[in-house]
Amino acid sequence: MKTISENRCFGGVQGVYSHASQVTGCDMTLGLFLPEQAETGAVPVLWYLSGLTCTHENAMVKAGAQRWAAEAGIALVFPDTSPRGDGVANDAAYDLGQGAGFYVNATEKPWSPHFQMWDYITDELPNALFSAFPIAEEAQAISGHSMGGHGALTIAMSFPGRFRSVSAFAPICNPTASDWGRKQFAAYLGAEESTWAQYDATLLMRKRGFDGPILIDQGTQDQFVDLLKPESLAMAMAERRQGGSFRMQKGYDHSYFFVSTFMEEHVAFHAAALHA
Amino acid sequence: MKTISENRCFGGVQGVYSHASQVTGCDMTLGLFLPEQAETGAVPVLWYLSGLTCTHENAMVKAGAQRWAAEAGIALVFPDTSPRGDGVANDAAYDLGQGAGFYVNATEKPWSPHFQMWDYITDELPNALFSAFPIAEEAQAISGHSMGGHGALTIAMSFPGRFRSVSAFAPICNPTASDWGRKQFAAYLGAEESTWAQYDATLLMRKRGFDGPILIDQGTQDQFVDLLKPESLAMAMAERRQGGSFRMQKGYDHSYFFVSTFMEEHVAFHAAALHA
Repeated sequence: MKTISENRCFGGVQGVYSHASQVTGCDMTLGLFLPEQAETGAVPVLWYLSGLTCTHENAMVKAGAQRWAAEAGIALVFPDTSPRGDGVANDAAYDLGQGAGFYVNATEKPWSPHFQMWDYITDELPNALFSAFPIAEEAQAISGHSMGGHGALTIAMSFPGRFRSVSAFAPICNPTASDWGRKQFAAYLGAEESTWAQYDATLLMRKRGFDGPILIDQGTQDQFVDLLKPESLAMAMAERRQGGSFRMQKGYDHSYFFVSTFMEEHVAFHAAALHA
Repeated sequence: MKTISENRCFGGVQGVYSHASQVTGCDMTLGLFLPEQAETGAVPVLWYLSGLTCTHENAMVKAGAQRWAAEAGIALVFPDTSPRGDGVANDAAYDLGQGAGFYVNATEKPWSPHFQMWDYITDELPNALFSAFPIAEEAQAISGHSMGGHGALTIAMSFPGRFRSVSAFAPICNPTASDWGRKQFAAYLGAEESTWAQYDATLLMRKRGFDGPILIDQGTQDQFVDLLKPESLAMAMAERRQGGSFRMQKGYDHSYFFVSTFMEEHVAFHAAALHA
């Protein structure tokens, strides 16, 4: 882990680090907030996966999460949303290629050599963090926004026992039935749709669910709500009798003004599970 | 209003009253909690509609609502769930007839002469209360459990502007598609299903929604959950982009142990709207 920057923040340290990733075949950058409590021992960790067009930086500077994580004694990880660099495939559209990894392992050219974000987030990066920082592997939770909410939900349901709680802000709930999903899955995974299902939170909820608490916030004035399909996941949760809260927040849109408004409650929600 | 009993309760008065109802053609009994603040002026009111087999008494003695209503300075009304008496039609089943009014206006014999619970709850009883007690007509909210949750939701959506907030505990969400609903609507309203839609919370949510906050709690271990169909209403709320919280509460069943657990949060939810 190479240190890019470290700043004191709410009594702890907001760091930015990079490391050579084997699975994505490029250097990857991430933000990591360590609370003051990490000076004396391993602390629980909340993963925060970001949305389309974001880097490791957006949530780190705009979500206001450090205030609450410091109080709760929890580390925050802000990974990047895709591989990057001159040698990495890209697309002119904002929603494909760099900044739009969709948290899948691409199987199709030209994406497959670098776009292995599922393995990066679920295997390589956690192992790198646990060996380099005082983070308690046995106390993890996960959250995310939009495309990152999709990532958080699908990863949480795919690794039973790893995450004590999962939350999401305006997640892409049903990508196999949305233009935020079908385009990217066709590009990254190919035309055979049976390979897409493992990356769809609504389908995973129907099949598997999550053995822990879930909190989802969705703004009613979200300009992208038709692409997010909250109704699909809300129905799947209720049909499954999945414990959890699905909150439609009146008047809020898709921005970080929405995310930051409810960040305190999400951190408190995860803190309750992580400190249980 | 005839006084049946009055008991001091959390600094206020828990009363039971009866009155001759024109619309149901019989005497109707109700519980009314007035907080201490009612001694010096009109107070906001929270309606609580009860479920199958209940009278005015069940929630009054088991829901634990007075504690929180006293603190918030809010009155509580606990109406009965049907007309009653020897001259009133009945059925051997627990889910039809007395104790099972379903908050509709019956059009079919033998039910139509007395089973006019919609008009009783939305017109006759409120007028009787506003003229007899220090209750602020302009500050009303409504809640209920099971069949009463169905009543609360359908009434709230049918009288825009009357209720500032609506909540429900394990409501019957989609009676036109459930054995808790189809049997009763066929008996009370007849075979023409187009007349049923006005009494279905999911259909009203799709058509109309509610201009205020909504809070719904549903236990994941509810023994009647397949009859309640929370998935239908959860989907309709999300599809409509209706502001509100739909919470699946892990491990809770259909009982008053469930209702009382979350009563504090429901009263606080309504108090925020009523005191706004």
